[in-house]
Amino acid sequence: MRKRKKKLSSKIGWSTPDRITVHGLNLCEEVLGHFSVGDYAFLLLTQRRPTREESNVFNAVFITLVEHGMTPSAMVARLTQLGSPESLQAAVAAGLCGLGSVFVGSMEGAARMLSEAMPAEGSAGDVNLDELAKDIVATYRSNGRIIPGLGHPLHKPIDPRTPRLFEIAADSGLSGPHVELMQGVQKAAEAASGKQLPINATGAIGAICCDLGLPWEIVRGIGVMARSIGLVGHLLEAKSNPLAFELWQRTEEEILLNSSADTLS
Amino acid sequence: MRKRKKKLSSKIGWSTPDRITVHGLNLCEEVLGHFSVGDYAFLLLTQRRPTREESNVFNAVFITLVEHGMTPSAMVARLTQLGSPESLQAAVAAGLCGLGSVFVGSMEGAARMLSEAMPAEGSAGDVNLDELAKDIVATYRSNGRIIPGLGHPLHKPIDPRTPRLFEIAADSGLSGPHVELMQGVQKAAEAASGKQLPINATGAIGAICCDLGLPWEIVRGIGVMARSIGLVGHLLEAKSNPLAFELWQRTEEEILLNSSADTLS
Amino acid sequence: MRKRKKKLSSKIGWSTPDRITVHGLNLCEEVLGHFSVGDYAFLLLTQRRPTREESNVFNAVFITLVEHGMTPSAMVARLTQLGSPESLQAAVAAGLCGLGSVFVGSMEGAARMLSEAMPAEGSAGDVNLDELAKDIVATYRSNGRIIPGLGHPLHKPIDPRTPRLFEIAADSGLSGPHVELMQGVQKAAEAASGKQLPINATGAIGAICCDLGLPWEIVRGIGVMARSIGLVGHLLEAKSNPLAFELWQRTEEEILLNSSADTLS
Amino acid sequence: MRKRKKKLSSKIGWSTPDRITVHGLNLCEEVLGHFSVGDYAFLLLTQRRPTREESNVFNAVFITLVEHGMTPSAMVARLTQLGSPESLQAAVAAGLCGLGSVFVGSMEGAARMLSEAMPAEGSAGDVNLDELAKDIVATYRSNGRIIPGLGHPLHKPIDPRTPRLFEIAADSGLSGPHVELMQGVQKAAEAASGKQLPINATGAIGAICCDLGLPWEIVRGIGVMARSIGLVGHLLEAKSNPLAFELWQRTEEEILLNSSADTLS
Repeated sequence: MRKRKKKLSSKIGWSTPDRITVHGLNLCEEVLGHFSVGDYAFLLLTQRRPTREESNVFNAVFITLVEHGMTPSAMVARLTQLGSPESLQAAVAAGLCGLGSVFVGSMEGAARMLSEAMPAEGSAGDVNLDELAKDIVATYRSNGRIIPGLGHPLHKPIDPRTPRLFEIAADSGLSGPHVELMQGVQKAAEAASGKQLPINATGAIGAICCDLGLPWEIVRGIGVMARSIGLVGHLLEAKSNPLAFELWQRTEEEILLNSSADTLS
Repeated sequence: MRKRKKKLSSKIGWSTPDRITVHGLNLCEEVLGHFSVGDYAFLLLTQRRPTREESNVFNAVFITLVEHGMTPSAMVARLTQLGSPESLQAAVAAGLCGLGSVFVGSMEGAARMLSEAMPAEGSAGDVNLDELAKDIVATYRSNGRIIPGLGHPLHKPIDPRTPRLFEIAADSGLSGPHVELMQGVQKAAEAASGKQLPINATGAIGAICCDLGLPWEIVRGIGVMARSIGLVGHLLEAKSNPLAFELWQRTEEEILLNSSADTLS
Repeated sequence: MRKRKKKLSSKIGWSTPDRITVHGLNLCEEVLGHFSVGDYAFLLLTQRRPTREESNVFNAVFITLVEHGMTPSAMVARLTQLGSPESLQAAVAAGLCGLGSVFVGSMEGAARMLSEAMPAEGSAGDVNLDELAKDIVATYRSNGRIIPGLGHPLHKPIDPRTPRLFEIAADSGLSGPHVELMQGVQKAAEAASGKQLPINATGAIGAICCDLGLPWEIVRGIGVMARSIGLVGHLLEAKSNPLAFELWQRTEEEILLNSSADTLS
Repeated sequence: MRKRKKKLSSKIGWSTPDRITVHGLNLCEEVLGHFSVGDYAFLLLTQRRPTREESNVFNAVFITLVEHGMTPSAMVARLTQLGSPESLQAAVAAGLCGLGSVFVGSMEGAARMLSEAMPAEGSAGDVNLDELAKDIVATYRSNGRIIPGLGHPLHKPIDPRTPRLFEIAADSGLSGPHVELMQGVQKAAEAASGKQLPINATGAIGAICCDLGLPWEIVRGIGVMARSIGLVGHLLEAKSNPLAFELWQRTEEEILLNSSADTLS
């Protein structure tokens, strides 16, 4: 059973009449005008301010996740707006509900795979990342599981975000063993399968987040933060350039045509 | 009736195998490494990059909205996580659903009040903002409506965020007629009511957004973007410092005590 | 300001080790085996058990609202399931988010229009429902507002649900002045506009709910209860007969085709 | 990869101007006035009408799941309503989001455990349900997993819903091998652990649903349908007997007291 608690508390923040405290900082004096949105998100995730280099990498990772075009999530937000134009927040909420195991899950999966495989710092002996990569690939293959972070249905032969994100991490001096391990996993997977398996954006982000020191459990949270910004963008566009009504009408018409014919046969 | 469309399109973005385009920019070459998260959100809202001054003000406004302590929204996210710990996105979605007319509405209301009252640029003659403010207050009072953006249950006699946000706008050269009008509304409302009615953070933000040139319809969107970042922060804290189970148990116990006694009497 | 309460209570229900009480009834002895789902929903909405006649009418109204084919709400639930197949509840939640002013709103609007126009029982003198109907139509027309509950884009010249629902209400002896008033509104609106304006299902349901004695504020709630049952049905069908992936792919392909061409021109 | 489909179809329903078809039935002639809500939900889940006996059992199971007092889900719906009183549907949606692995999961888990253990009908030889039950318990215990459907923190020594639901199933002639197996699992678990482990309502419902022939994947759906009805009931009560504001205020005050003290120490 879960335990009862006598005292409810939170380190996130609280307010008195003349002061608002957030993660131990005075919001008005120490945060506003001194933080950018990205750095503030980093603070909420890690309880500390990023260095300039960490900020560069984190902002690039976050931005990569904001907008992916007309995804199912964006379609959901727009279709919800059609029925509840008065509730922007509910349309964004509906869009977020689909960020589960299929879409954001592979990013989380890549981060988890890499962080669980990597020996703890200071563990005895050197780590041979190539051997580790081969072990990971062999384990996934023998279990019949898909290796997260590899391959992309559209972006072939390479996902253009991957080299750019790796470049930003390297330029900031923050490309580390998890990125190297991810690259080893790619090589081992290509050797084992005989197919081209480029590291996709979720694989790159998973690896970079690990090298930033972010626990894998946090990674899905960055995706949710980012996508909610993108969904607001879609809902604003939909006011002048809607598509939900047309999508609905086409779908209903097609269903009517194909389904009623089905029942006759 | 709504009109049908032959062609669905979107200016937000699309992808080809080797290129991802967002608002006309090449994501990899022109965005990643060149935009911060806040500036990218501004781009999504306005379809243009902010100037350095606009960026300063917009980041401060956005950050003000991220985290407000243990709000109903944060409680909702945490209570949802208790039942669905596997679905971070659904817990954030649940928290967003309550950002409606009561909480985010007053910010939208302030922006709308100011932008609708302000004559279009270039309209004949000078605008007397003090007279305009008195008219606004008189209209709201005669209709029995609450003037949005004034007063705060906790932050008395002033809301500390307001002078700080106004200072950042002024330092950036972006404090304009809407801020002035909001200050006029405060004076007129205090004169008419005989009470202290400080401009609260939502009033300050509404005014500043208008001076940034953002349509009032966009303002709620900034609140939704910002709060989703804050909610992820709460869900992460809840893993080490939960309160949802305790809240639930206390509530059920109290209900049992008071309600069953009710039925006996 | 809202008032604080010393004691939290609820008349809905509570549990002790050997007994569960719901609306004053012993769940195990007085509810299970003695209530149908529809009658239990009626109990939750009205705090009393329906008569046999009320039950007939309420079940028909409720069922009418469960399933409307491939609505935007159903599309939303299915598109959400595509990303989060592990969270059935989140897909239903996403689908519900769009039941706002546009879709369920007209049912609420019809119920409100009729109940607000109808004089309180026992008010002096007879009510001339035809005159009342003409007044309602004149008021809506002079305000440029659409009269809720009339007309249907597909079901012409009549909505087949309307005569059937009115028949069930009449057979149960529960067709009353609100149904009559709705029919008067139809006649007056057709006379004023010169167009055929059949009472649609939402108009019929709004009127019948008023004659059942349900406050108009409850009516949207019946729609939400009912639609959540229908959405679960869609999510189950989608396991063997999915359409979300195809919808997404077609939409992205069309966007790419039309939008990138846009930018070249 | 997923496959593309040329034709979108659905067997659930479609409409032509004068006819609405649902699961092959004419809504107006064959459903309205001929189905109760519970039986219609059964139709949506199974594509067939229940027998009278199945209807008795299914309605009892469904009703058991509608209302559980002031659960986290009900608190979430009420706290959401505080911020968005204009969006009943969003408050219900928020409440549903938490029906995940913890609360509704155990019902799904019990149904899955029983249906996966039970040999297919017609498989050679007799099944010894007691042996099967011991095997299940041994497997769960050796894997350190909790056996779903047993034990209850409040309802001790028995959950009063369980004998009542089993009685209704037996009276309807629908108590079958899955109920028997669940009872065997209880006995085996008590023998192995030396503790009292009563079958709780989720265990009873899981077993009964299997004996009704419902696939375990459907079971969570019944919970979601049912709870959405209960949540509407809570939102209606909250209009006259609110508790969300008080819950929020108490929580914020306690956080302020404990958290600011924390930071001083």
